[in-house]
Amino acid sequence: MQRRIEPRLPRGMRDLLPEEMLRRRHVMDRVREVFEAFGFGPLETPALEREETLLGKYGPEAEKLMYSARHAKGKDRLALRYDLSVPLARVVAAHQDLPKPFKRYQIAPVWRAERPQKGRYREFYQCDVDTVGAPGMLADAEILQIVYEVLSRLGFSEFTIRLNNRKVLNGIGQIAGVPAEALPGLYRSIDKLDRIGLDGVQQELESHHIPADAIGRLMALLQVGGESHHVLAALRDHLGRSAEAGEGIGELEEILSLLEAMAVPPERVRVDFAMVRGLEYYTGPIYETVVERPRIGSLTGGGRYDRLIGLFAGRDLPATGTSLGIERIIDVMEEQSMFPPGVRRTVTQALVTVFDAALLPASLALAGRLRGAGVNTEVYLERRPLSDQVRYADRSGIPVALFLGPEEERAGLVKLRLLGTGEERAVPAEQAAATVRARLEAPR
Amino acid sequence: MQRRIEPRLPRGMRDLLPEEMLRRRHVMDRVREVFEAFGFGPLETPALEREETLLGKYGPEAEKLMYSARHAKGKDRLALRYDLSVPLARVVAAHQDLPKPFKRYQIAPVWRAERPQKGRYREFYQCDVDTVGAPGMLADAEILQIVYEVLSRLGFSEFTIRLNNRKVLNGIGQIAGVPAEALPGLYRSIDKLDRIGLDGVQQELESHHIPADAIGRLMALLQVGGESHHVLAALRDHLGRSAEAGEGIGELEEILSLLEAMAVPPERVRVDFAMVRGLEYYTGPIYETVVERPRIGSLTGGGRYDRLIGLFAGRDLPATGTSLGIERIIDVMEEQSMFPPGVRRTVTQALVTVFDAALLPASLALAGRLRGAGVNTEVYLERRPLSDQVRYADRSGIPVALFLGPEEERAGLVKLRLLGTGEERAVPAEQAAATVRARLEAPR
Repeated sequence: MQRRIEPRLPRGMRDLLPEEMLRRRHVMDRVREVFEAFGFGPLETPALEREETLLGKYGPEAEKLMYSARHAKGKDRLALRYDLSVPLARVVAAHQDLPKPFKRYQIAPVWRAERPQKGRYREFYQCDVDTVGAPGMLADAEILQIVYEVLSRLGFSEFTIRLNNRKVLNGIGQIAGVPAEALPGLYRSIDKLDRIGLDGVQQELESHHIPADAIGRLMALLQVGGESHHVLAALRDHLGRSAEAGEGIGELEEILSLLEAMAVPPERVRVDFAMVRGLEYYTGPIYETVVERPRIGSLTGGGRYDRLIGLFAGRDLPATGTSLGIERIIDVMEEQSMFPPGVRRTVTQALVTVFDAALLPASLALAGRLRGAGVNTEVYLERRPLSDQVRYADRSGIPVALFLGPEEERAGLVKLRLLGTGEERAVPAEQAAATVRARLEAPR
Repeated sequence: MQRRIEPRLPRGMRDLLPEEMLRRRHVMDRVREVFEAFGFGPLETPALEREETLLGKYGPEAEKLMYSARHAKGKDRLALRYDLSVPLARVVAAHQDLPKPFKRYQIAPVWRAERPQKGRYREFYQCDVDTVGAPGMLADAEILQIVYEVLSRLGFSEFTIRLNNRKVLNGIGQIAGVPAEALPGLYRSIDKLDRIGLDGVQQELESHHIPADAIGRLMALLQVGGESHHVLAALRDHLGRSAEAGEGIGELEEILSLLEAMAVPPERVRVDFAMVRGLEYYTGPIYETVVERPRIGSLTGGGRYDRLIGLFAGRDLPATGTSLGIERIIDVMEEQSMFPPGVRRTVTQALVTVFDAALLPASLALAGRLRGAGVNTEVYLERRPLSDQVRYADRSGIPVALFLGPEEERAGLVKLRLLGTGEERAVPAEQAAATVRARLEAPR
């Protein structure tokens, strides 16, 4: 015999066994349902992209985390995709005749060689929903409505969609009167307001050598808070001199009134002009969702990026969309036991036990009737005592076991056992399928 | 502006746009339904495996087609998976405490740098269903029942499951009395019987320097044909001296009688002892499915492989299963227009047009009611004349458009147009959702 090969996974990767897959599927199915209810269609792109395609967007930091790939005779420099935005931009640029708006979602793995840690893997799913070719705020508001619908449907209740606009941030930079090269530092400091407070931000700004009068104007601005419409009015006062900020404020006002028409509860939305999303390519509204209970930080993030596609298409195409942190959503739902009782450990709903070889054909026929009634049914495949068969059902999480022995066969009966409660009853063979179905649908 | 990046795909790869995805999903959902009806659960494994894991099974030919992968700081030699059997074996070896039988399916992409040609891509889906830990023929028969159910449910009617046994082939080798090193050539020649006929096989055997008396015995055997039980009886006569062949014949008889109890029509199954599947690792029954109309060759292939898992687990674990050629099934269904009319070009079932900004809130509310009734609904996202909005629905394949202008609004009506027929009618606003739903469900 050959030398044994260690059954080892690559570092930072994992297998998803059926039990875990069923919980993940519950989440992904709900997400897909909402996306499709709004007319977003599924897209798939290859895992491998040309390195040139991927490097267009990312800096050298990301390059370090990418997996490059090659085959013996290949000349192309390839790499595993790093996110789902660049593949979308490539697809839209390559198919410029697609009807617009083009609304797509993609739920698919991406690969990043980050340091593995609890809950963070080197292959993980991203979940993106984007609208290409619609420049107006209606497209942005729709993305936020979807975020609201997805999180509500999954059972999250206390969350806030935080809303800002790249143009407002630019206006803040303008009124602060700091040089362009100091702006990234300024935005990074503002972004920390939640964590380090007003004094902390002031100290940071001072250490960045931002002029005292600019800091004064910024601190006055940063004290503005409260309800979204109030914040927007105050922003108009402070940033009135910036035409760009005025445009951004108008966009935020429009989004708020659309969300109202979409019946998204206003308490779920908050304009937060100190929220700065990292990615350089956002050009208009930016948004993220923070879950307050459980206190777990942001679950979604996105915004309008009207210039990314131009990198591939040769002309700009407006686009907006969001990523849902689906791995994090799944982790939180696990931790908080948020899965409904219908999400089981196994796809199998009933086990038909086999008394002996003579009764096997009758057991196979019974299984066929159960499947015909829509019950996922296993026939026990090995020759083992009934006690072993029941133990298998129990260990696997199969909720119902059926018995068809010589006595039942003679009487035209089937014995049915609910594994959870141990409850047992005999039913006429022709009613077995309907009885099992009814028991599976009964509320627990 | 940055230099434009060509939106090119890697050689031999493709994007799957929503229209194509919906047809693929129709196929994959049917396949999954059958797998789960029999109690097979979903498994996912990482795209990347350690090279050592993959090279355990394949020869140097396969190695040439593999994509190797690495990241800047990684020491592990990694590669993209080449099939789904080796990941299964690794998973089962790493989780030896999984309840047995372990029944799993996996529908997932694999990567092979083969020469690209029509319908053959370097990233393509494989679809495997396997039972681990059940040594008896019931597990094999169940796999064949699943093949029958899947193909029937997809609309294939004239197909044959061809059935043979590695042990019978070994017996043929024994009675031919040829040296071990000549056996692979012998099997390859026999496998061509369908294509080159009896004379062709005889010539091939002669060219392989197989002794004349062995060829004589083989030619007598190869003339046996017809109905499966008849073939098995004849095989017993010819191969009676080989205990191994006897065992294999017994296994085939058992499978045939199980398939009968499973209500698989006997005309769909044929014992074909000239069928030789390439892979070395099969140890018992082997099977493939050939579709006769349309004449497209084999759509599934598999068998029992009781020794593969031992390579990783250190001890053998019985296993049997099949691959469904899902890419080929999809291609054939496209060519033969086998998709039911319910499989549409877009997920969107209704477009709510927008008359003007003043009526947008009413249109958004209408869309909300449609979604609440389970209708996938888009609101037109741009500000354009109604004619453009209808053209968008038409180009996208959206079946229903709804209009809510000032007149309809005053009268409490919604106008509803079926894009296919142009049929138009006004319905009370509160009945719009139910009417659309009924139209979508009506047979076309």
